[in-house]
Amino acid sequence: MSNTITLAHGNGGAENNELITKVFYKAFKNDILSKSEDAAVIQDGTLAFSTDSFTVSPLFFNGADIGKLAVCGTCNDLAMMGAKPKYLTCSVIIEEGFEIRNLEKIVKSMKEELEINGAIVVSGDTKVVPKGAVDKIFINTTGIGEILYKGISSNNITENDLILVSRDIGAHGATIFAAREGMDLETSLKSDCISLYPQVKALIDSGVKITALRDATRGGVSAVLNEWAKQSNVCIEINEEKIPVCDEVKGICEILGFDAMSLANEGTFVLAIKKEDAQKALEVLQTFKEAKAASIIGKVTQQYEQRVILNSQWGTKRFLDIPTGELLPRIC
Amino acid sequence: MSNTITLAHGNGGAENNELITKVFYKAFKNDILSKSEDAAVIQDGTLAFSTDSFTVSPLFFNGADIGKLAVCGTCNDLAMMGAKPKYLTCSVIIEEGFEIRNLEKIVKSMKEELEINGAIVVSGDTKVVPKGAVDKIFINTTGIGEILYKGISSNNITENDLILVSRDIGAHGATIFAAREGMDLETSLKSDCISLYPQVKALIDSGVKITALRDATRGGVSAVLNEWAKQSNVCIEINEEKIPVCDEVKGICEILGFDAMSLANEGTFVLAIKKEDAQKALEVLQTFKEAKAASIIGKVTQQYEQRVILNSQWGTKRFLDIPTGELLPRIC
Repeated sequence: MSNTITLAHGNGGAENNELITKVFYKAFKNDILSKSEDAAVIQDGTLAFSTDSFTVSPLFFNGADIGKLAVCGTCNDLAMMGAKPKYLTCSVIIEEGFEIRNLEKIVKSMKEELEINGAIVVSGDTKVVPKGAVDKIFINTTGIGEILYKGISSNNITENDLILVSRDIGAHGATIFAAREGMDLETSLKSDCISLYPQVKALIDSGVKITALRDATRGGVSAVLNEWAKQSNVCIEINEEKIPVCDEVKGICEILGFDAMSLANEGTFVLAIKKEDAQKALEVLQTFKEAKAASIIGKVTQQYEQRVILNSQWGTKRFLDIPTGELLPRIC
Repeated sequence: MSNTITLAHGNGGAENNELITKVFYKAFKNDILSKSEDAAVIQDGTLAFSTDSFTVSPLFFNGADIGKLAVCGTCNDLAMMGAKPKYLTCSVIIEEGFEIRNLEKIVKSMKEELEINGAIVVSGDTKVVPKGAVDKIFINTTGIGEILYKGISSNNITENDLILVSRDIGAHGATIFAAREGMDLETSLKSDCISLYPQVKALIDSGVKITALRDATRGGVSAVLNEWAKQSNVCIEINEEKIPVCDEVKGICEILGFDAMSLANEGTFVLAIKKEDAQKALEVLQTFKEAKAASIIGKVTQQYEQRVILNSQWGTKRFLDIPTGELLPRIC
């Protein structure tokens, strides 16, 4: 590891994992943390607990803003553990000179998204720092959820599971990129940012057997699949033609040489569902307008342990690696 | 309220309270939040839940660093509700180029302080932002504690309570100021930053009847007393000669025109204890080396509702108001 922090250390990919493992996990070592789930499971498996800080730039973009993102991000991490989001904290760090009108817009977005989750903010903190000490506003949300479906874990995936994705991928990353480049007015593209609890609740209510869920944020679907392959010590084999990517995202990826599989999402999740229930899970997802493009994208094998294989639409096979390098900073 | 955020909006005093009330409480309105306690009480009174973001500058100072502060700050908020700190999240926002050696020092301080509290970090988040988007490193910690002593509340203080302070006041604020001015090498002054759970645990174990506890962070003891007077709709009358202030803090206050009562503390708390138990509480506190200067500083009356009266050592009386204006920014 280098002597100083680089942007790659926050990429959601390989360098990010290295920093977390070598600095944070090493010091804070405990059984809950070492499970590396989307949220910690505490209090005898009854509660989920998760934190996220949001530094996205720009603050307002097609489909969402930092406020909506801050509630979705943390509530989604709870939902990914089969939990109903219940209590959130909200801690803001604001730059001197920030417009109160914009703060009110952000807080209004948070409130709307809290209502979708049936969650409330019960504790907060407000810091103001001098100009130049922070770029506009950063928000931390930390949430507690009540676990409705026990046993979801990224460490238990086996050959009895199929792998699904809940919608077309890469919309959030592509939207933020377009906004930064001033391309946002020429496209109908918008962030997929959305609260996933309703979809997870519907899956639970339908009775399908869920092995693992993970929202594909920084590092995208590539990062999730690689983390799962490693955590569960399996090989995940994905069919490229089954991966939904919308035309606008395809366009941005082609022009700029991005891989949609590594682009961040904020309302798209990967599922490992028991084979016999995969079709039913797909049907449940597709009852949501945001998940019309949900798809069974692959299966689990033992061929190459801890690796992800991509079967391309041209009939070739290659390893899909965990993203590395400086992906878009401040994507969330 | 102005149209833009000012440093005063983060002062822990009047403008800070106005921003929180008019923007955050207004949008997030609920019964738990409106209690304005140091930590939210959730899950049928069994758990406390609190968040804090830390932006202190400099990162390292006499007596502590941002890591120790981040664990103490959140664990102390839990302890102030009679809770044993149990689970923490740790979310860091790091500037590109930050030295990993310094990150490791900070994380080591966190680990040491976690052990004092018997708490563990179970979830985290690491963001890296480009140079200039954050000043070095900001840390959010959010904690869950198990409530050992129920019913502690800043809304229940009555004339049956006496008011205590756990040690000499203002050391943290004075230390940070001295460090910024390069005076830190000439003084033995150090931050009071410490985990308060051991002191609270001893008070609980001693059987004293506790009405309210609050650590006197931003806005200092002045802010706590004014918040309490308002929340409990009482008058708090303080004797200036009973308020412990060490010589170094007195010196810095005299030179610079600060009021020690408004200086931030990070290991000093104010107590409202039932009259008959106040002496016993004092004795329990004084068994701790950091609380040797603990003192009964005042009483509760109905003379001027929602106001704090300071009886000066010269025999005069004045109202002690909640601090206003730009106090030291980035104090915690």
